[in-house]
Amino acid sequence: MQAIDRQLQRYGCQMDVSFGPFSSPFPAREYGGCILFAGTRKDARIMAGVPTVWLNPAEDVDAYSVYPDDQYAASTAVALCTLAAIDKIAYVDISTTHRSGRIRRETLREESLRQHLEIVSIVRMEEVDASLLRHWCEIGVQAVLCYHGIAGIRVLSACQEAGLTAGKNIRILSLAGAGNVPVTPALSAFLIPYEELGIHAVDMLMDRIRGIHEPISAHRALPPVLQLRETF
Amino acid sequence: MQAIDRQLQRYGCQMDVSFGPFSSPFPAREYGGCILFAGTRKDARIMAGVPTVWLNPAEDVDAYSVYPDDQYAASTAVALCTLAAIDKIAYVDISTTHRSGRIRRETLREESLRQHLEIVSIVRMEEVDASLLRHWCEIGVQAVLCYHGIAGIRVLSACQEAGLTAGKNIRILSLAGAGNVPVTPALSAFLIPYEELGIHAVDMLMDRIRGIHEPISAHRALPPVLQLRETF
Repeated sequence: MQAIDRQLQRYGCQMDVSFGPFSSPFPAREYGGCILFAGTRKDARIMAGVPTVWLNPAEDVDAYSVYPDDQYAASTAVALCTLAAIDKIAYVDISTTHRSGRIRRETLREESLRQHLEIVSIVRMEEVDASLLRHWCEIGVQAVLCYHGIAGIRVLSACQEAGLTAGKNIRILSLAGAGNVPVTPALSAFLIPYEELGIHAVDMLMDRIRGIHEPISAHRALPPVLQLRETF
Repeated sequence: MQAIDRQLQRYGCQMDVSFGPFSSPFPAREYGGCILFAGTRKDARIMAGVPTVWLNPAEDVDAYSVYPDDQYAASTAVALCTLAAIDKIAYVDISTTHRSGRIRRETLREESLRQHLEIVSIVRMEEVDASLLRHWCEIGVQAVLCYHGIAGIRVLSACQEAGLTAGKNIRILSLAGAGNVPVTPALSAFLIPYEELGIHAVDMLMDRIRGIHEPISAHRALPPVLQLRETF
């Protein structure tokens, strides 16, 4: 948010931008824009006609958006598994909605993994516990890849409960965030580049409002930053 | 350069910025700034008193600067070597100047590697040839880490000349750039985030000129993007 504020200040228009998620009409100013943060399709309908850039949308939107490059995270994760001679993984999906409601980015990520690795188990975060971790180790799962860092931390804690050492008995890698959370052992993760996302979202929004030049693309995927630490 | 131009346009001041390297006085405008690209200490003296941000400086400068995060590249390279069970490496240094003239960033990078890996050989790019590659393989060097992608491509070509397969007989990783050069096998590299560097340099420069808010820091190191491909 700080990066967004600073970038807006540089344009001298900090008052003209609203943030989501929200699902009620909002006062769009004459020369204003809007950045929706983690909004939904419902918000998109409300925003029709107002210059909008979606920042890391929680659902697929057919509009200007800036988000972390999940394909990069997935293909780099595959390369890391290959380096570590891992071919049998489990995948922890954070989605609590029905699978049909998942964003396409998430589905594509899972598909990229599946092309190169044997995914022996896909579970939702809520299903992870010590006995599942023990079971995974017994059937030869070498690494747990997690859709999100929150899931990674849950796997890590289940690991400890099961008396297993993450990074030794089984590896853990978060595909999106939480690499800087101070847990022990330190979680390996692709960090979400929040600051860059904010800067690009503001720049893209201002380009749309001012029309100085065409945005390069309606969608910008920025590569997350790999933090290889103790769990992988 | 395109990213720099676009960002300057957003500020409406594309004419007020000059680029280096140059070593002659230049016309600084009243409300102008200057981005030095790969300048030297000599340029720094010329620039005294003019708002300046150094973009990826070729030498250490005690001034505002934006550059790739070499420490990130070095520590991630160490982690990758650990994952691949590599502990014996060779290091190719691009510097053609005397070692005393090397930028501190380069020295620190080499030191980070040395803390965790056995560097059995350090050579300059010009010394790399097929017989050296064969020698390295004979004495058990598992990977060649290169200061820069240009060196990486030289190692790759020497490798082919020696009848060795990069990524199989010996691994190659560039710590700064050239990952997108269309060579076969594809070079693994940390890509320099040129676009982000340009955007941050312009933003930092404008903050200095306009004084809207204090720059967060005089130095910004942006993480390069790991591209794990065939050679590692």
